[in-house]
Amino acid sequence: TRSIDLAVVAGDGIGTEVVEQGLAVLESAVAGSDVKISTTEFDLGARRWHATGETLTDEDLGRIKEHDAILLGAIGDPSVPSGVLERGLLLKLRFSLDHYVNLRPAKLYEGVTSPLANPGEVDFVVVREGTEGPYVGNGGSLRTGTPHEIATEVSINTAFGVERVVRDAFARAQARPRKHLTLVHKHNVLVHAGHLWRRTVEAVNAEFPDVTTDYLHVDAATIFLTTNPSRFDVIVTDNLFGDILTDQAAAITGGIGLAASANINPDRTAPSMFEPVHGSAPDIAGQGKADPTATVLSVALLLDHLGLTEEARRVETAVAADLAERGGRVRSTAEVGRELAARVAG
Amino acid sequence: TRSIDLAVVAGDGIGTEVVEQGLAVLESAVAGSDVKISTTEFDLGARRWHATGETLTDEDLGRIKEHDAILLGAIGDPSVPSGVLERGLLLKLRFSLDHYVNLRPAKLYEGVTSPLANPGEVDFVVVREGTEGPYVGNGGSLRTGTPHEIATEVSINTAFGVERVVRDAFARAQARPRKHLTLVHKHNVLVHAGHLWRRTVEAVNAEFPDVTTDYLHVDAATIFLTTNPSRFDVIVTDNLFGDILTDQAAAITGGIGLAASANINPDRTAPSMFEPVHGSAPDIAGQGKADPTATVLSVALLLDHLGLTEEARRVETAVAADLAERGGRVRSTAEVGRELAARVAG
Ligand SMILES: CC(C)[C@H](C(=O)O)[C@@H](O)C(=O)O
Ligand SMILES: CC(C)[C@H](C(=O)O)[C@@H](O)C(=O)O
Repeated sequence: TRSIDLAVVAGDGIGTEVVEQGLAVLESAVAGSDVKISTTEFDLGARRWHATGETLTDEDLGRIKEHDAILLGAIGDPSVPSGVLERGLLLKLRFSLDHYVNLRPAKLYEGVTSPLANPGEVDFVVVREGTEGPYVGNGGSLRTGTPHEIATEVSINTAFGVERVVRDAFARAQARPRKHLTLVHKHNVLVHAGHLWRRTVEAVNAEFPDVTTDYLHVDAATIFLTTNPSRFDVIVTDNLFGDILTDQAAAITGGIGLAASANINPDRTAPSMFEPVHGSAPDIAGQGKADPTATVLSVALLLDHLGLTEEARRVETAVAADLAERGGRVRSTAEVGRELAARVAG
Repeated sequence: TRSIDLAVVAGDGIGTEVVEQGLAVLESAVAGSDVKISTTEFDLGARRWHATGETLTDEDLGRIKEHDAILLGAIGDPSVPSGVLERGLLLKLRFSLDHYVNLRPAKLYEGVTSPLANPGEVDFVVVREGTEGPYVGNGGSLRTGTPHEIATEVSINTAFGVERVVRDAFARAQARPRKHLTLVHKHNVLVHAGHLWRRTVEAVNAEFPDVTTDYLHVDAATIFLTTNPSRFDVIVTDNLFGDILTDQAAAITGGIGLAASANINPDRTAPSMFEPVHGSAPDIAGQGKADPTATVLSVALLLDHLGLTEEARRVETAVAADLAERGGRVRSTAEVGRELAARVAG
């Protein structure tokens, strides 16, 4: 038997509801195999912060690191000042565990209605850099709250950091039928960071000569995501542009209720983390209304990352089949989870 | 007679073609009135740079400043290294002339097909900050081209700069029927800049108590632009987010061929500049194929800025009528210009 130790951070709002279903589907996927999943729950998020003032302690982080992977629901609540949990918990996890590949597939499944009139076939992945760029938290403010305030945000980009994520993106492009990589940046304005990205893509391309590449400014990318999303195969981009483009990508493929993501440490020096792209949605929390599909698809990414590719495929196939037959049916979070788990069991 | 001195920067690619038609419509709009337009052409852009190595000299800038307004076509050519003309000419104009309000209307005209299946009524304006943020050109790179390269981009935001553009946006919202202002930023990650923006919107709201406000993270804004663009009335946002959102806004309202913009200096210490959102489109340049509509709508914004509101209205009405009857007709740049000029003449 192979035992997988999973750290579970259900978090806030609908996080707990969707994670419960994600775990049920995960169990179903490995049932009857020699894989055994054990889970450890971590009490992190708004409740813990209100109770203790803590977001993520060194001890939490140390214990999380002992696991094989992390399943995260959602972080954030209106009762907590903006930035506290995002920077102190979610981004701290991504940065501390060196999740430099933030992988976000965008696929328009059969049966899902796109808000676009003519979406065509949409099936691409965004490789969003996860440990640098404008997200580093390097900034500050002076004379805060006065008419002379100045606030800065520094985007930091290193050859080391850009090269490793670009190489990962090339490898992913090479493994796909179309073998195409699009760099998205804004190198005509952000010339220093942008040219580093551009030079890196050109250099690493030599290692992947069969991968074709092109470049789009981030503003133009939002146009193509609206008018011709089929043109994309793999997108590689920085942390902030990736944040923006993946929400738009989710919107055109049926909404963030379906969008999965993986925060991957490809060097496996720390556990990778799998989470739906959506947030904690306090407006519908506790009502059993949330769609757990994004979490279930994140579980498929988790299985894949752990080398359980056959199990991953079964989970994705179950979701695809469910989406194809879903129609306008209104189901609870638990119903969707139950039906998906049943399909995975086969 | 009132004489208006217009600086014309036709620029590169299709810039010259669309500006010619924009000027023809402008002439038509003031024909028979006591307004006389005189134009001075400035040779700026790729040709000039190749010939002289200059982008925008102090002398150019001094002469441009003597005009009442600027009409700009498009800047940029693949033969010029990325960033040279953008930073050295276009952004230099916006920054030197203190164009702190970059106004970009997004309206889905009758007869225009949106790529969205159910766009609803779309009629909002984006007030994009034009002189600060990640566009300041404050950054650099160290050990460039080596494996130890580090490249930075610094976003600079001041209370002075944010407050003046936020106040302008509130005034615009107040003058519109819905009186609603949406701040777009990413204050859960870019906490310093984001909180400055948020505090400023809250403070300035006291001067405009009848304007309602809400806030969206930039990633969520791209979702709503896809699923429910009718929700927007006035958006205020920073330079980079504004760049991204206005291209997406153009895409959902029929493409950048129709998107107008105004770079406004509301204090009138220097001339404001009016330009289509699209670029120089070298692929179709010189073929008489470019749609001059975005430039003509920019001319309407120019007339409005100069207090010629009746003339501005006539130009916009002409465009609206043309769009309503356009259908699938293929017309040359000159034909569209001619027909619009004729409609404006009435
Ligand atoms: C919650 C927030 C910090 C986060 C991000 O910006 O990365 C979210 O938007 C996401 O995309 O995962
Ligand atoms: C050409 C470029 C510098 C410019 C910008 O980023 O502002 C353009 O994209 C725009 O939106 O006017």
